[in-house]
Amino acid sequence: MTTAEAFQRARRPEQKVQRRDAILGAARELARRDGVRTVSLADIAAEVGIHKSALLRYFETREQIFLELTAEAWRDWAQALHAGLDAATGDTATGDTATGDAALVADVFARGFADRPLFCDLIAHTPLNLERNVSPEAVRRYKLTSLGVVDEAAALVQRALPALRMAEAREFVATLASLAGSLWQIANPAPALAELYASDPALAQACVDLAPRLRRTAEILLAGLIASRNQA
Amino acid sequence: MTTAEAFQRARRPEQKVQRRDAILGAARELARRDGVRTVSLADIAAEVGIHKSALLRYFETREQIFLELTAEAWRDWAQALHAGLDAATGDTATGDTATGDAALVADVFARGFADRPLFCDLIAHTPLNLERNVSPEAVRRYKLTSLGVVDEAAALVQRALPALRMAEAREFVATLASLAGSLWQIANPAPALAELYASDPALAQACVDLAPRLRRTAEILLAGLIASRNQA
Repeated sequence: MTTAEAFQRARRPEQKVQRRDAILGAARELARRDGVRTVSLADIAAEVGIHKSALLRYFETREQIFLELTAEAWRDWAQALHAGLDAATGDTATGDTATGDAALVADVFARGFADRPLFCDLIAHTPLNLERNVSPEAVRRYKLTSLGVVDEAAALVQRALPALRMAEAREFVATLASLAGSLWQIANPAPALAELYASDPALAQACVDLAPRLRRTAEILLAGLIASRNQA
Repeated sequence: MTTAEAFQRARRPEQKVQRRDAILGAARELARRDGVRTVSLADIAAEVGIHKSALLRYFETREQIFLELTAEAWRDWAQALHAGLDAATGDTATGDTATGDAALVADVFARGFADRPLFCDLIAHTPLNLERNVSPEAVRRYKLTSLGVVDEAAALVQRALPALRMAEAREFVATLASLAGSLWQIANPAPALAELYASDPALAQACVDLAPRLRRTAEILLAGLIASRNQA
């Protein structure tokens, strides 16, 4: 039995879940390989081995598929933060946020993004494209997931760095996530462009190395949240 | 004589410049009204009143048109920074970057972006789309402009806040520009989405007010650049 036949015959709830997972899996693999921007609904359908119309019984649009993958990526990223920060108790934090646990927080966040290229790519596409071509209900579900993870991440930051207020920790998380999306795009130019950057010294400044850049910006933000408050 | 006839008859260099300007002007107006993502080459050609093939004698792709507008927007933004910062002499800056001139720098940068919606929209599209569908030579020209303006803006920051090193001022400018692009997309959701955000208290946190958010992040970055250095 071919994949297409399996899809046509699937009627039971668990088979429908399998179809949905197969569609998400195909979109995930294509986006990882070619970048979110180039993957069409037809590409995903072809990869799964079904017709576009069959795929549209499971998802509203191409954008809804990617919005689901983004929600999944936020949850996976939260797990990585727990793994990196659950051991940090905040006992070295005394307002001096640029040392000790602040360096740990900056490193765990930077790696959390840099280790997840698809997540970074999706973050940039979310407000630009994904949220603009799905139903309000689909956006609402997505937003509740992403806002929930931002809160969860902020609570981890705040526990590691008790000198920060919860609102400040949330600002840190949201700002760094936005930056991860846009910096990933800059750090991953098309091949022809990467070659141009490498060969032309005048353009060297245009190159971005994602993990160190995010780590450094995270350190600046953490230090600045306290410093700007004290001096305000 | 209709616009289309004028275009067909244009042969002299100054007429070619006029054609080019008309194409850029049409793209600018459409993108301001409908957002960069929705404007196609066909839309621009229709607005100017010429055929797509005629338009392609002046620009490689839709993306090259928008990349030219982005370069133009960087230069216009630099003028606004000069207008806001040329009077700042840096005589209040003594390393205490969160007060005095730092507040002025943060405000001038935040307004420089928030007053230029098309510039912010274009910044988000640049690494994601625009730089990926033009010739290496077109990207190179664009990059030299944008890097030049980043340097010019960094020099203004550094003059107002002499405690900052030039490399730090450049980091500030580049980070805030990236954020302006992504935050503008979040701050300007599709109408249906804006309504959803406004009506659902659980989503209130998803709303972003661009100018105050950029001003606050600019203040945090300026304070953090100094604070993270001192504590390193």
